[in-house]
Amino acid sequence: MLTERAASLASIFHPVSKQMEQVSSSLALLADKAGLSSDEKLVAHALLGSGKKIRPALTLLSAKILGTPSEKVITMATAVELLHIASLIHDDTVDYADTRRGESTISSKWGGKVAVLLGDYLFASSAMHVCETGNIGVIRRFSETIMDLARGELQEHFSAYNWDQTKEDYESRIYDKTATLFSTAAESGAVLSNASSDKVSALKSYGYHLGMAFQIIDDVLDFTGSESELGKPVGNDLSQGTITLPTLLFIANNPSNAGILSARNGEYTKSTLVKLVDEIRSSSAMDEAIAVCVSHTEAAKESISWLPMNNAHRSLNSLADYVIAYSK
Amino acid sequence: MLTERAASLASIFHPVSKQMEQVSSSLALLADKAGLSSDEKLVAHALLGSGKKIRPALTLLSAKILGTPSEKVITMATAVELLHIASLIHDDTVDYADTRRGESTISSKWGGKVAVLLGDYLFASSAMHVCETGNIGVIRRFSETIMDLARGELQEHFSAYNWDQTKEDYESRIYDKTATLFSTAAESGAVLSNASSDKVSALKSYGYHLGMAFQIIDDVLDFTGSESELGKPVGNDLSQGTITLPTLLFIANNPSNAGILSARNGEYTKSTLVKLVDEIRSSSAMDEAIAVCVSHTEAAKESISWLPMNNAHRSLNSLADYVIAYSK
Repeated sequence: MLTERAASLASIFHPVSKQMEQVSSSLALLADKAGLSSDEKLVAHALLGSGKKIRPALTLLSAKILGTPSEKVITMATAVELLHIASLIHDDTVDYADTRRGESTISSKWGGKVAVLLGDYLFASSAMHVCETGNIGVIRRFSETIMDLARGELQEHFSAYNWDQTKEDYESRIYDKTATLFSTAAESGAVLSNASSDKVSALKSYGYHLGMAFQIIDDVLDFTGSESELGKPVGNDLSQGTITLPTLLFIANNPSNAGILSARNGEYTKSTLVKLVDEIRSSSAMDEAIAVCVSHTEAAKESISWLPMNNAHRSLNSLADYVIAYSK
Repeated sequence: MLTERAASLASIFHPVSKQMEQVSSSLALLADKAGLSSDEKLVAHALLGSGKKIRPALTLLSAKILGTPSEKVITMATAVELLHIASLIHDDTVDYADTRRGESTISSKWGGKVAVLLGDYLFASSAMHVCETGNIGVIRRFSETIMDLARGELQEHFSAYNWDQTKEDYESRIYDKTATLFSTAAESGAVLSNASSDKVSALKSYGYHLGMAFQIIDDVLDFTGSESELGKPVGNDLSQGTITLPTLLFIANNPSNAGILSARNGEYTKSTLVKLVDEIRSSSAMDEAIAVCVSHTEAAKESISWLPMNNAHRSLNSLADYVIAYSK
């Protein structure tokens, strides 16, 4: 299943495969030259993982739909991936995650201190790359994106176990946590290709909707995936008090559900939780959440429908479909 | 003693006192508007502490020596302080520090997760402020400074208990850890005042030497201060394996010292350590380290000696002397 998905992504990235290789080479060079310590494997471990690299591909495909991605665009794509990696390192550190994509996390291998500082180093390194584009607007948007990412994670932390949060709270949070970077990735590819403002808006909107869909599917998979696929227990979000779209939709449909009422009263035992996760998973809330997700992927495709139909455009359409296929 | 020092700093900052108030107001506004959580005290606790604000004063005084600090310079000074605060929050988190300047740290009050994410948020917020200056060169230097800070802390971590490190290793580390930000603070005040390149170099050099002196004194105080002044045990650095200038000078003077030989052999017991700290403290290495520090503060003053002699210039000279007085 994983191989099929990977193959599918490789074909989606095909129009920018040469530039994707340049991004990988830049990361390898950075790992080689960082000289952070005598422990040379640290930066390589952080940068040369098996990430899907959807975000840099988004920057490159957004540029490619309009012409040939420039060196600046490739530098920006590298920055986008560096920012994503830095943010994952900090997320894994604060969540005490042992593994990601089957590999040990930096924090589990080198400890929290090194992980926090390496994350800082890579955040700054990503900003240095963006500076190379020489575009103040893009640099500002990039800094704002880092603020959004941190705020999204903080909001998730502070809203844990808050059963009164609304769908709007959730949407605002997943924008900060995920969609802002997708949106910035796509927008900057267009801006740095000197696209007209309506084309920039179209690609930014594509990135926004794709990011929202991507996070909603991730939240759906937390209920429907198997433990071996997820690398964490089913219903892990809810067990940590993180209330996502499936739970919010389930609450709206079943306001008097015994499990929900218990949770609201702070009676949040393991058995209540296991039962609640089962109930949510077999409820209509799952299909409703997927429907919200589909509305985002359709909106993503619609945003760019008037742009030239070429290989890159077809790839962006396929990428939207890939996100949905990912949920099955 | 602390009051005398504070009074002295207030008089040093006097030529830019109005602009220092604007920096404080900007931080207060940010604390007010961050909207990170229902816990409004979090950002206020981080931003409205009792820091000495030497770094933003450096930006302002560097501009003031050349004329009237512009709005861009004040924004830059705010960014410099935000960056310093963000970096302290991460340092305190990774070092499990309970207090700083008599106040609880963010990590001890809100936990490591919130502290890491709030630090990220403030790093990005500082970068947003720098973007407002519209100066790509300054933005690039600022990003590089964040990389330096993280690398300095990582180098300190990886070089712990390495008894073969050189004075050059130490200098490179304290540049990254401290002098880079002092240097950037002073340089950016000049650049954003449209100073000629020789004036920019002079103020950058002043900042570099002041920062080096500042860190060396801090490392000296770790031996000579009292536990109540330091807020941590005397010889805390060495007990954590951090080898600073006094220790390096002591080793050079006493290569066959029993404590040093034991430490080299990995026999690093508490009693060996206490004895070694005592020996270093009462050795000539302390005065030698202070002499290195004085050579930096003299070089700082010398760097700017040819610039117009005015209130701001006198303040920068006094600030260099203040750093030395700080060690007594």
